[in-house]
Amino acid sequence: MGLNVAQKLIKEHLVTGQMAPGEEISIKIDQTLTQDATGTMVMLELEAMQLDRVKTETSVQYVDHNMLQVDFKNPDDHLFLQSACERFGIWYSKPGNGVSHPTHMHYFSKPGKTLLGSDSHTCANGSMGMLSIGAGGLEVAMAMAGEPFYVKMPEIWGIKLTGQLPDWVSAKDVILEMLRRHGVRGGFGRIIEYYGPGLKHLSAMDRHVIANMGAELGATTTVFPSDQEIKRFLKERNREGDWVEIIADEDATYDHMDEINLSELEPLIARPTSPGNVVTVREAAGEPIYQAYVGSSANPGFRDFAIVSKMVEGKQVAEGVSFDINPSSRDVLEQLTKEGYLSPLIHAGGRIHQAGCNGCIGMGQAPASGRNSLRTTPRNFPGRSGTREDSVFLCSPETAAASALAGKITDPRTLGMDYPHIKAPQPEMNKEVFIAPLPEEQAKSVALVKGPNIASIPEMNALPDHLEIEVLLKVGDNISTDEILAGGGKVLPFRSNLPEISKFAFEIIDDEYYTHAMKTRDVGSAIVGGSNYGQGSSREHAALAPRYLGLRAVIVKDFARIHWQNLVNFGVLPLTFKNEEEYRKIDRGDILILANLHDQLKKGSDLVIKLKEKNIDIPVQHALSPRQIDIVINGGLINWTRKAVH
Amino acid sequence: MGLNVAQKLIKEHLVTGQMAPGEEISIKIDQTLTQDATGTMVMLELEAMQLDRVKTETSVQYVDHNMLQVDFKNPDDHLFLQSACERFGIWYSKPGNGVSHPTHMHYFSKPGKTLLGSDSHTCANGSMGMLSIGAGGLEVAMAMAGEPFYVKMPEIWGIKLTGQLPDWVSAKDVILEMLRRHGVRGGFGRIIEYYGPGLKHLSAMDRHVIANMGAELGATTTVFPSDQEIKRFLKERNREGDWVEIIADEDATYDHMDEINLSELEPLIARPTSPGNVVTVREAAGEPIYQAYVGSSANPGFRDFAIVSKMVEGKQVAEGVSFDINPSSRDVLEQLTKEGYLSPLIHAGGRIHQAGCNGCIGMGQAPASGRNSLRTTPRNFPGRSGTREDSVFLCSPETAAASALAGKITDPRTLGMDYPHIKAPQPEMNKEVFIAPLPEEQAKSVALVKGPNIASIPEMNALPDHLEIEVLLKVGDNISTDEILAGGGKVLPFRSNLPEISKFAFEIIDDEYYTHAMKTRDVGSAIVGGSNYGQGSSREHAALAPRYLGLRAVIVKDFARIHWQNLVNFGVLPLTFKNEEEYRKIDRGDILILANLHDQLKKGSDLVIKLKEKNIDIPVQHALSPRQIDIVINGGLINWTRKAVH
Repeated sequence: MGLNVAQKLIKEHLVTGQMAPGEEISIKIDQTLTQDATGTMVMLELEAMQLDRVKTETSVQYVDHNMLQVDFKNPDDHLFLQSACERFGIWYSKPGNGVSHPTHMHYFSKPGKTLLGSDSHTCANGSMGMLSIGAGGLEVAMAMAGEPFYVKMPEIWGIKLTGQLPDWVSAKDVILEMLRRHGVRGGFGRIIEYYGPGLKHLSAMDRHVIANMGAELGATTTVFPSDQEIKRFLKERNREGDWVEIIADEDATYDHMDEINLSELEPLIARPTSPGNVVTVREAAGEPIYQAYVGSSANPGFRDFAIVSKMVEGKQVAEGVSFDINPSSRDVLEQLTKEGYLSPLIHAGGRIHQAGCNGCIGMGQAPASGRNSLRTTPRNFPGRSGTREDSVFLCSPETAAASALAGKITDPRTLGMDYPHIKAPQPEMNKEVFIAPLPEEQAKSVALVKGPNIASIPEMNALPDHLEIEVLLKVGDNISTDEILAGGGKVLPFRSNLPEISKFAFEIIDDEYYTHAMKTRDVGSAIVGGSNYGQGSSREHAALAPRYLGLRAVIVKDFARIHWQNLVNFGVLPLTFKNEEEYRKIDRGDILILANLHDQLKKGSDLVIKLKEKNIDIPVQHALSPRQIDIVINGGLINWTRKAVH
Repeated sequence: MGLNVAQKLIKEHLVTGQMAPGEEISIKIDQTLTQDATGTMVMLELEAMQLDRVKTETSVQYVDHNMLQVDFKNPDDHLFLQSACERFGIWYSKPGNGVSHPTHMHYFSKPGKTLLGSDSHTCANGSMGMLSIGAGGLEVAMAMAGEPFYVKMPEIWGIKLTGQLPDWVSAKDVILEMLRRHGVRGGFGRIIEYYGPGLKHLSAMDRHVIANMGAELGATTTVFPSDQEIKRFLKERNREGDWVEIIADEDATYDHMDEINLSELEPLIARPTSPGNVVTVREAAGEPIYQAYVGSSANPGFRDFAIVSKMVEGKQVAEGVSFDINPSSRDVLEQLTKEGYLSPLIHAGGRIHQAGCNGCIGMGQAPASGRNSLRTTPRNFPGRSGTREDSVFLCSPETAAASALAGKITDPRTLGMDYPHIKAPQPEMNKEVFIAPLPEEQAKSVALVKGPNIASIPEMNALPDHLEIEVLLKVGDNISTDEILAGGGKVLPFRSNLPEISKFAFEIIDDEYYTHAMKTRDVGSAIVGGSNYGQGSSREHAALAPRYLGLRAVIVKDFARIHWQNLVNFGVLPLTFKNEEEYRKIDRGDILILANLHDQLKKGSDLVIKLKEKNIDIPVQHALSPRQIDIVINGGLINWTRKAVH
């Protein structure tokens, strides 16, 4: 039977397991990508493993998140990362080079390869015919050390594209249409694979937009074929030699199917506070805006800025609108400058920010209290912008620009102007702005540069066989890692300092969490939640910080993939209700008893939790492989690796 | 007898007093300038005064300081400022338009006019033949309300310029030479007036550089004549009608004289941690650098960026150097872009930041721990960069660029390249990015937009007639307002919230100050210091926050001008030792007794402080005018104005 693109990529890299959906498989990792918000922890992990040199074909460390340097912490982290790259044989991409995903695509992507990245939007490089997966930092560290990556074999979801996008509708609207249809949980346990005749009208960068926000569907990843367009993309960058064709066999099948006729799409927008709250721009039109924000890995291409430039050329944005331009990369900024697209943005009232993630991750550009912000970014979880009670909408660059001009949410088709078709010029290659891996002998003598805020990871104890733990927090559905441990300029500077960053755990939900957790830290604690718990960013601090504060078990309706894995990796028991209705029976403050825990875990997927005061039993389940049970019992992957249990 | 330029400007605006050095005079203010870090307090003061509409010819509110929006506070302040401008008849310059001083010069400066600004570098517009003075926010608020500005008539210091700057030496080196000769106290009580044949080789923007850093000499302000170069500058901006000639009479004299032969200057650099620590670049050459930083009001001109661009064109900055480009204004950024000067900066590894003050005021770009940062900014006081133990050098753009390329401090003359003479193109006027004052009738109905972090100024009580107060802090010479109350991304967001911002008072010097001061708040407290106390930024929070914490008296060897005035305005008694030697006799923890205070103040300039435990008397002096004595006794200018004592 023929294979689809995803199956071909997996088969080519399979180390252990059967390619049957739901089975644990392990795959060889060719490339890794780390960014600075998660990367410092990865480097500390490599140090703890006493790794000599990375074993991947290519590993790249980007600095794109923590670029606001209000004190020594972020710049110290940059120097630490640079020294770690020199020490371990990793490419270093310095601050200002741009967001990891488009930059990686531009310089390092290779059709047919696997890429594991400690960033949830790593899936963006699925646009290049790669198997490109976001994971927790520790898993990326393991991959850098040469270990395969473990994941449950996903189902493959074929999305057939037909037709061609109308004027004023662009790639962002395609992924918003997916979110409108399927919601933020729609891709869970699946790889999304796009195919069909509509593909030929979507450029590699358009595909990047669509693949990137596969993360918002909860998918394991997204893949596109490596076709003639990918060949063109690589050739244009003098990297034709990196191209191989990878397309689905003619008789390939998919576990699930859907179809989008591109010709029928119209401009869409996700309302606050979920990427899944999608409506047509027509429906939202007229709401006043404070901010129009262009940039991020969700709309990183030259085109995405150039079209905005053409739309505002010779005009001024509406009075009082903050028009924030966030170049995705040094190269895009340079090209926009050279080709005459930057100056109209400046003239029209734009605020041109340094190339990087910036406000997308709450690093600046937070909106004013109670004001609407329109963004081309991938996420609008509560508080992610930096403003706690924020009101962020997600849309295409066309919609953002039209709304900036009008001062209110505006369907770009109503502007009455001709659609500016953008022809991207020959891109620039400027690899000199990277620091290449040092030769092995030279690398060995490099010392890690650790500023005063860079602290080693504390020891974590093993999982007791008997737990009596209090439920410190009960939360609802779709809790994101931004709510578990915020990003942004206030919190992320402590990313390399676990005791300090833990003070911010669950702060957005409950100001008192840290204080309470510190009291129960030694005996342990639990959290109860709803569906899609831990969606969003891959940052492992969202597992590590609560664990540091004594978290032993999370009982929810279901988990988002990467956070589930992060909990396992740091020795927190991830459990789901056998009967979702029983979510109601547990309250904050209840004491949970988990007895004979090790035996219960090993015997099968079912466990029983006893509510101490209420004296009722709640049946729950785990989805751990035998390897993962061992990891959790040992208190996490670091302990497990140290003990060489495997 | 003939008059010099400074005397002409003062004479033209004199309201009360005699133009004899040391006498209190008051002068009519034609224009005001506020920036956002000080401006929110000014607007709250206007509100407290129940002002209907500003009475100046032109008042402009800039947003250039607090542009890092990591939460709602800064954007809320921007909206508040915008609404206050609409309410009170003020021009509003939105975030992204640029630093107040060069932007004001470009659009609003007028030879022959007075400009009072709540920013210590307001003196920069002295380049335009204006009397342009930095002051505390409350004084600017009074000027906006139509009150004259009170100041001691300064001495006029004539600096004769001869010769012509050699290649690789630029305006920054002229002001560094002044600082090398005269130190950070050299201009105290003086207006610096430049004249002579050397002037004709200095452009208006060169003069801006020199006038700007007159603040670092402690001068009341700096003036240049309004000559043919100023006419050219205005004509180029289609503002020829704003030009009037103002030059010194042939028989004009000066109270002090100095002369600089421009031909003899060489590249200079100020070592950490004072603008007065000037040496030749040759002497400092070879020290490794972490950062090269271009921008700020001290080097804001097109030329200052263009020359850096030419120097790095086709090259890469040294590995590991953070090459930070901070465009001074929207217009300069647009012109650099259009004329092809921006892309070489990007290509060479530059990080292009939004137009504004940015790292100059600690808003981002803080250097790593223990690493050298080279900056074209005006100040390098300890901690101002955001990094507490920082190591900041001040230099010209030429020196910064040469050092960025080499990775170490480098005299640009040793690069072996031809000096790139820059011809600035026709500048762009884009006044549409400002919001013009509303017509009066419309303005009256505008409501102020106050976010949750914007708090009214608390009531301040009057000065008791008898004080027994503890010395909470004893500090040395040259304590800057950055050390009294830091700027930067952590502190300035609380600028509109006095109780909150007070928590950071003296934090750089003593972590415990706030805790101690809160205990003695009701009875009051004192601070003892050395020479040039309160140099640097004009921010009135540096007086207001300690006052809120109970500060009643500051006893030092001598004061910096603006901070002295701010203390008076907020009802803190500024005293100087009659005999500087007695500084040694007072220790931290001593209790000071000031008895019959009101009478003592009114009787003359001499007072006696008794040290309670030591039982010794310390004679001190004040320099308050009768008006100011009344202000201090009433607990500050707000109380005084309310009581309509005058």
